[in-house]
Amino acid sequence: MINFDFVSPTKIYFGKDRENEIGNIISSFGFSRVLLVYGMSSIKRSGLYQRVVDKLDKSKITHFEVSGVRANPEISLSRLGIEICRMNNIELVLAIGGGSVIDTAKSIACGVFYDGDTFDFNLHKALPTKALPVGVILTISASGSELSNSCVMMDDKTGIKQGFNHDLNKPLFAVCNPELTYSVDKYQTGCGIVDIISHSLERYFCPSNELEFADSIALAIIKDMVKVGPICINDPTNYDARAVMMLDSSYSHNGLTGLGKSFRFPIHAMEHILSAFDIKIAHGAGLSVLIPGWIKFTYKYDIDKFVRFFKEVFDINVADKEECVKIGIQSLKNFFKSIGMPITLSELNLHESDIPNLVNLMTLDGTRLIGQGTIKTLDKEEITLLLKDLL
Amino acid sequence: MINFDFVSPTKIYFGKDRENEIGNIISSFGFSRVLLVYGMSSIKRSGLYQRVVDKLDKSKITHFEVSGVRANPEISLSRLGIEICRMNNIELVLAIGGGSVIDTAKSIACGVFYDGDTFDFNLHKALPTKALPVGVILTISASGSELSNSCVMMDDKTGIKQGFNHDLNKPLFAVCNPELTYSVDKYQTGCGIVDIISHSLERYFCPSNELEFADSIALAIIKDMVKVGPICINDPTNYDARAVMMLDSSYSHNGLTGLGKSFRFPIHAMEHILSAFDIKIAHGAGLSVLIPGWIKFTYKYDIDKFVRFFKEVFDINVADKEECVKIGIQSLKNFFKSIGMPITLSELNLHESDIPNLVNLMTLDGTRLIGQGTIKTLDKEEITLLLKDLL
Repeated sequence: MINFDFVSPTKIYFGKDRENEIGNIISSFGFSRVLLVYGMSSIKRSGLYQRVVDKLDKSKITHFEVSGVRANPEISLSRLGIEICRMNNIELVLAIGGGSVIDTAKSIACGVFYDGDTFDFNLHKALPTKALPVGVILTISASGSELSNSCVMMDDKTGIKQGFNHDLNKPLFAVCNPELTYSVDKYQTGCGIVDIISHSLERYFCPSNELEFADSIALAIIKDMVKVGPICINDPTNYDARAVMMLDSSYSHNGLTGLGKSFRFPIHAMEHILSAFDIKIAHGAGLSVLIPGWIKFTYKYDIDKFVRFFKEVFDINVADKEECVKIGIQSLKNFFKSIGMPITLSELNLHESDIPNLVNLMTLDGTRLIGQGTIKTLDKEEITLLLKDLL
Repeated sequence: MINFDFVSPTKIYFGKDRENEIGNIISSFGFSRVLLVYGMSSIKRSGLYQRVVDKLDKSKITHFEVSGVRANPEISLSRLGIEICRMNNIELVLAIGGGSVIDTAKSIACGVFYDGDTFDFNLHKALPTKALPVGVILTISASGSELSNSCVMMDDKTGIKQGFNHDLNKPLFAVCNPELTYSVDKYQTGCGIVDIISHSLERYFCPSNELEFADSIALAIIKDMVKVGPICINDPTNYDARAVMMLDSSYSHNGLTGLGKSFRFPIHAMEHILSAFDIKIAHGAGLSVLIPGWIKFTYKYDIDKFVRFFKEVFDINVADKEECVKIGIQSLKNFFKSIGMPITLSELNLHESDIPNLVNLMTLDGTRLIGQGTIKTLDKEEITLLLKDLL
């Protein structure tokens, strides 16, 4: 186990109707000037927006707004938000939504005290030294951004989509009411399931000793998701299933499942290229195609770890290790199919002719390797083979 | 799943040699006046004390001291610490040790801003409203106090031992170097293993729905402890095993394994009486006797939950549920015996003649029930039967 610092300071207000306490929660931290960040019209249609605004008004909290955040969130909206914060002495950025909205809020919060452009953080040209606190009212379980140190944004001009990780990105609080996710449709729920699994799975498959605290927690969360995911899809108002999925989303990506391990996100790194290449591709759908492909390509470099994975997650008890992994990969594909997720590039409307472009983007024209520090580093040729196998 | 608030704000500095950063760590929080709290002479013999003091001096941190903390920590030492804090404008209480030392530090930290006696918090006569921050350099994996909201103290005059839980009890930071636990002897390591298991086990056995995030995490930690515990006993300088045990101790009792569940600590409640009745009884040893006894007495009230427990922890796959639990209890006893822990009251030097006194103390002369809100509430007669079965 390697040395590490870890803190997960976010206070969670979990459960039914908790968003109705938002005024009191913000007041309890001593803030009275807030920037709301949200997406399209869904929180207005559902009535959530009006409820939140009413509570803020009741607690005499002045609020400004940035709205229209989309999937693959645009850095230009962050720039707008930063201006509003500076002009109005904003004390807290309140995200109402899921990953894209929360990441936009983080991008704004870090940019307010920075003289340069806030996308510099994503380009790893600068590190934030101070940020406004971010609060969250979570409406979809997927990204884990409500507790994570991660902020992924897209430069709408260049098409570059990139994330940066920093402790200042960890929200001050998150209001997590599973009922707010009842309206997430089957497809988006499926995408969320895959994303949550991926956050723990990619940490699990980073090299570790046989004894590793994080690996057990990662497997527990993945097993839970395999159990509750289909319930969330087929019985979307099942409170307990939505509640487990919500907590799994938070704890899959707050660092707990990777404690004491050095990790990279090779599958996420490849996927961000897919969904930037075609913004119609949902992040979870891209992951669903890539995860089994990545496993097939890498399992032989640490087969025992994959055998443990498939034994614990899918209860596969086959003595022959190769056979166990083969059955395991098929079980994983079947699981993704069962929750309505794609397992081929064709299903994402990507074709053989796209592969050279995709590989160039993934490897920065062959100058970058994927997955260094994981069980298998992938170069341009290997990624090409991996993708071709997924057509 | 019930509604809950949760925060675990403690920053962890984990790994080899991290205690040598103590001066920089304290300075990074802006503090320069510290009260050290520690136990007997062991940290002086090991050189840890001198190393810490040197680092504090180097960082120009003024320090005062309270030492001599024992198991079943005495509230009189807290009172002394509070006086020192008040007279010297102390900004941080730094505990160097395990549960008793950390709890004394918490008791001091909460008492400094309270006009009455700090044991009032333990007697549930008052709630703290403000506390000094507490830092920890951990030297034994057991209590989980380094991340927990719990503070258990003993009134040396009345012999009353009682705990109180409050978010203000959660430390600001914890320095966790597994190497500092190499010198913990086999017996104390065994006691720690049982205590860590108990923290997750008692949460697991509180009522829950079939779908429960916390139950999976609790089982993962217990399984891990069954795996690494014997390694820590038999190969005490195995870094990875000591590291997993250290993280298990922290995360077994920081609230994570009980998230969204209503819980009581019936076995801990009974054990605190045993170790207060005879201060030679170690907390973990008392738990080791009581846990299998409590399971035998309560399993029939939620047999499926016990079957899942024994299946996951000891890999017991027996179709007949009664048989599964019977084998499971024996496996648990065998495990405790294998790590040098007692499984009968006689081994604790407690006899049939002590039982009426113990039961009266546990039930406050028959006026208190044990385990209300758990799967089985126990009254005076039932506790008598439970204890007699453990002679």
